[in-house]
Amino acid sequence: MVRVAVVGASGYTGAESVEILLGHPQAELTYLTGRRDCGPLSDLFARFKGRVSMDVEPLDLSRLADRADVALCCLPHKTSMTCVPQLLAAGCKVVDLSADYRLRDAAVYEQTYGLKHADPANLAKAIYGLPELYRDQIRQADLVANPGCFPTAAILAAAPLLKQRRVRTGTLIVNAVTGISGAGKKPTAAFHFPNMNENLFAYGVGNHRHTPEIEQIVSDVAGEKVGVLFQPHAGPFDRGIFSTLYMEPQGEVTSEQLFELFESFYRDEPFVQICRTSPHLKDVTKTNYCQLFPTVTKGKVVVFAALDNMVKGAAGQAIQNMNILFGLDETLGLL
Amino acid sequence: MVRVAVVGASGYTGAESVEILLGHPQAELTYLTGRRDCGPLSDLFARFKGRVSMDVEPLDLSRLADRADVALCCLPHKTSMTCVPQLLAAGCKVVDLSADYRLRDAAVYEQTYGLKHADPANLAKAIYGLPELYRDQIRQADLVANPGCFPTAAILAAAPLLKQRRVRTGTLIVNAVTGISGAGKKPTAAFHFPNMNENLFAYGVGNHRHTPEIEQIVSDVAGEKVGVLFQPHAGPFDRGIFSTLYMEPQGEVTSEQLFELFESFYRDEPFVQICRTSPHLKDVTKTNYCQLFPTVTKGKVVVFAALDNMVKGAAGQAIQNMNILFGLDETLGLL
Amino acid sequence: MVRVAVVGASGYTGAESVEILLGHPQAELTYLTGRRDCGPLSDLFARFKGRVSMDVEPLDLSRLADRADVALCCLPHKTSMTCVPQLLAAGCKVVDLSADYRLRDAAVYEQTYGLKHADPANLAKAIYGLPELYRDQIRQADLVANPGCFPTAAILAAAPLLKQRRVRTGTLIVNAVTGISGAGKKPTAAFHFPNMNENLFAYGVGNHRHTPEIEQIVSDVAGEKVGVLFQPHAGPFDRGIFSTLYMEPQGEVTSEQLFELFESFYRDEPFVQICRTSPHLKDVTKTNYCQLFPTVTKGKVVVFAALDNMVKGAAGQAIQNMNILFGLDETLGLL
Amino acid sequence: MVRVAVVGASGYTGAESVEILLGHPQAELTYLTGRRDCGPLSDLFARFKGRVSMDVEPLDLSRLADRADVALCCLPHKTSMTCVPQLLAAGCKVVDLSADYRLRDAAVYEQTYGLKHADPANLAKAIYGLPELYRDQIRQADLVANPGCFPTAAILAAAPLLKQRRVRTGTLIVNAVTGISGAGKKPTAAFHFPNMNENLFAYGVGNHRHTPEIEQIVSDVAGEKVGVLFQPHAGPFDRGIFSTLYMEPQGEVTSEQLFELFESFYRDEPFVQICRTSPHLKDVTKTNYCQLFPTVTKGKVVVFAALDNMVKGAAGQAIQNMNILFGLDETLGLL
Repeated sequence: MVRVAVVGASGYTGAESVEILLGHPQAELTYLTGRRDCGPLSDLFARFKGRVSMDVEPLDLSRLADRADVALCCLPHKTSMTCVPQLLAAGCKVVDLSADYRLRDAAVYEQTYGLKHADPANLAKAIYGLPELYRDQIRQADLVANPGCFPTAAILAAAPLLKQRRVRTGTLIVNAVTGISGAGKKPTAAFHFPNMNENLFAYGVGNHRHTPEIEQIVSDVAGEKVGVLFQPHAGPFDRGIFSTLYMEPQGEVTSEQLFELFESFYRDEPFVQICRTSPHLKDVTKTNYCQLFPTVTKGKVVVFAALDNMVKGAAGQAIQNMNILFGLDETLGLL
Repeated sequence: MVRVAVVGASGYTGAESVEILLGHPQAELTYLTGRRDCGPLSDLFARFKGRVSMDVEPLDLSRLADRADVALCCLPHKTSMTCVPQLLAAGCKVVDLSADYRLRDAAVYEQTYGLKHADPANLAKAIYGLPELYRDQIRQADLVANPGCFPTAAILAAAPLLKQRRVRTGTLIVNAVTGISGAGKKPTAAFHFPNMNENLFAYGVGNHRHTPEIEQIVSDVAGEKVGVLFQPHAGPFDRGIFSTLYMEPQGEVTSEQLFELFESFYRDEPFVQICRTSPHLKDVTKTNYCQLFPTVTKGKVVVFAALDNMVKGAAGQAIQNMNILFGLDETLGLL
Repeated sequence: MVRVAVVGASGYTGAESVEILLGHPQAELTYLTGRRDCGPLSDLFARFKGRVSMDVEPLDLSRLADRADVALCCLPHKTSMTCVPQLLAAGCKVVDLSADYRLRDAAVYEQTYGLKHADPANLAKAIYGLPELYRDQIRQADLVANPGCFPTAAILAAAPLLKQRRVRTGTLIVNAVTGISGAGKKPTAAFHFPNMNENLFAYGVGNHRHTPEIEQIVSDVAGEKVGVLFQPHAGPFDRGIFSTLYMEPQGEVTSEQLFELFESFYRDEPFVQICRTSPHLKDVTKTNYCQLFPTVTKGKVVVFAALDNMVKGAAGQAIQNMNILFGLDETLGLL
Repeated sequence: MVRVAVVGASGYTGAESVEILLGHPQAELTYLTGRRDCGPLSDLFARFKGRVSMDVEPLDLSRLADRADVALCCLPHKTSMTCVPQLLAAGCKVVDLSADYRLRDAAVYEQTYGLKHADPANLAKAIYGLPELYRDQIRQADLVANPGCFPTAAILAAAPLLKQRRVRTGTLIVNAVTGISGAGKKPTAAFHFPNMNENLFAYGVGNHRHTPEIEQIVSDVAGEKVGVLFQPHAGPFDRGIFSTLYMEPQGEVTSEQLFELFESFYRDEPFVQICRTSPHLKDVTKTNYCQLFPTVTKGKVVVFAALDNMVKGAAGQAIQNMNILFGLDETLGLL
């Protein structure tokens, strides 16, 4: 049994991690920590009433060291990097769900998040936790930077094309619509029910923080710098991201060739599925799957990608990474 | 042209009042006031962009006196009663959409809202603005207390039965489900989209403030004290209240007799419609109608009532009252 | 390993049964049957892509006999009773999710469903599958009639009160709101998205088929005939039933006493939870829990009940029953 | 008073036309026709109860000639072109809301809709009813082809850029999300509430029928052939289209220059609004406005466009066209 601490259990991704761990046959939830909202987890999230009797406690590093083999760190970015070094020092492996260890270049981090990186030493060692691309390195890692929800969809959609040089590396367009769980737990005017219901709008125009993250990884895959125009929208539903990518083909390519390319690229992947028509968001919510449909239309390569932002886009992928870190079957708790 | 001020234009009922007044052929919007959120109304509510060029201004009583014949007072309860005397003193007729002038007995007000009534003099003169019951008195009034959304539905559903003594005056049960616009503009955890979407729950159990308001009016109609068990629920939609009333019949009665009783009672009412099957909430949203379906089942009288909490339950009814106050066709701007 | 057939796997309750069984550690899905919609289950429900490779096949009784220890029969009522005798004859235990074996009296069945019962012999042996009331009998049964979604909520909410004679056995009022998954898979005008979204309405006024089912069981609990006025409404959400019961107390009773009564009555029940405030529907969806909040207000006993119509109200409860039938831990696959 | 017939009043666009006409001060609804669903309009749409007492009747051309000056033809495509010649012959002006008269080239029509055009004579005379581009021609027309919902948004978003040669005429990308009212009244599996709620998916991949319509008009504006990759998605809300266009700039351009260009291009247009941030769909629903936000990001020109598919995308625009046809103030009934 892997003993798991969820650090920052009072937020949405923390709660989703707990939800998934409850069904994991070889992991045991041993420690829940929070900063402000302490007390029984089932007081914070009534859906855990009768299912989780543990309290959320203030983080105590010696308790953590005693109780846990791994910490899923669900703190917000900027906070996470002040905590992760302590978690590692306590002897835990760490899967960090924040953005703090995703950007390899501390200067890009500073530019994107507006403050100096507090933990460059661990930043240098962190592995980007997208198993489909970095499984071997994750296996050896102590610290995994769990990918963002939008980047997971975008990168999985673009990787086969870039790797096989079937699209040009000029600007990729990623048009995405996300459910509102992605906005987190804090009430705001934009996501107040009477404002958000029956609504849809774009945000982060020209400056969403996931842009450099996507660019870093797709450039890595392509072996050269790739630009990304990433445009997110918020839609009136709880869960899921639906992304539509538009790219310029490199040479001639047919939809059938793309299907085969994707099938072949992801052949052994348990959580990537290639479709022959548009995925429906509702078919992937509450699952760890990413569904992809690549096609050619009007001379462009278009790829549709759907996943659950809370699962493959956050907690599910974190647990997939945890499984890899501990040599478990990668799909445990996730099918 | 009736010149209309909307006092408290930065909230949902203020905005709905403006929306309706834009289509009113004999009313002119002349003054918009707010407390904190001043500036162009179209900055507060983008849906007024290009349609309303007026600013929301801090209330200035001499300007009000110059510009307006009537004020629709859309301030919150407790605040409203500190402002209404000034609006009246400025020479305006007032339709107050808050709860402050609805309870005739200041002691009941204090018990319900937790503070002493600040304006007992006007309280004594205010007319309860349900045209279907008090039209003649509204005509003569200077101050109309616009009914609450839940009370409007409940009272219209029960009045014919109580008036004609077809139900017992022991406790009426009013089970209601409201859309979230009724909760107002301020973001809260309960109405944060990811919490409220796909959700439904009861609130105000045993102590909702609309209970004494409903009891006051149905007792008035019955000519004796009538108890009401009013139980509201919040549901995942924007607009509308759907109420289901359960009552004990007084003597034998058939569904057909009830239909005829209701038809006859509301024969000349422009905004009450009697149905032969359950109303659908969506058929009355964005209208000033209340649809009622009375029936007998399992030896009980059951009445289903549907209306839009923002229209017949607030701004629409306020403008209906305004039309009466100024001798206009009561339906102007509302069909 | 219990080998499980899902008969009627192409509908919503069949699919939900499959979903739950995928996470069940001691049950194995061995046979999926359908009438019209045969072929890969993942073609019928894309969410099973990659997770279920089985086909839905026309029912073959000898295959069933070879492959399965138990059949979850998810056929529509009226069809189910023509199939269940065959399933039993094939040597399977049967949990029938239709209404066909719930009403003990074939005359009541005929009156309610409009046709003569086709299988009175098994009807006489079927056990009503509400574990909280009939666990011991379920243990011995070959055929379990899985309760309806509305009856499960209503009966769990009323049972402690009737058993302990804390409410009068005159007409109980059950006001319920259900999500639209309860309406099944077939598209209709009422549940067409642009009609149902932002809507709410009552249906089955005076004649919903769950009324005699509720009455049968609550009368059983009370030891005398109990009348029920059951009024369902459809609301704009996928899953869940929220029921509000209104009853007349027998003698004096306080909210605190009710809380203790319910706590005590359901002390050892894994799937019933007693709350001190209104349950939120969203806290029980996708779980097998029923949350109850009993209270006294305006001299009436009011109980709020929330559950997921597809889980505790259908497939989850069926699998709870299956666990009991096979002597497994009752919560397997359901926590 | 302009006397208006709504031909095909039993569908969603017919009903929306009636809704708008009820508030039009200089138009009178005089005739409602339908093919199958005849009888009181308020039986077909309960929201007209008490507001419209007219019946929907089978089309009778001599009655039409007697009663109406103009017909809003809300029939489905393919049917419309068999009826419009008769409407014209009866002496009515016609605004046709179907796709049948939008494509000038009958060969493109045949290729797109799969059958030969039945009325090439009138096709040659029909004017494309986008007032912002063709107002002068509409004024003289007898037959106006009311634009599609997606084309209206896409064309208004692209026209200033193409006219002023600020973008390249290579393939424009139009990524759109529509509410489900756009799918019409007929229940289908895809739009069954439990399937569509909390869902989002792409459709019409590579072959949506609005593509040639958009291409025809943007080519017209540009004075040369322009290709369009139009990709629609369906989202879980009733009304509205949110489109995001991606284009290659021609030469250097800034966001500020684009704002000014759009402001200037649409200066005198009553129903086009230029924004400085992303429009919110909810701000334009139930209005005849199209809100546009042009910007430059990552070296591309991006334009966000929002409108109500039932109003500016259908019935509202039809009535705007009707106002122009009869020399009325273009905004009557629409503010």
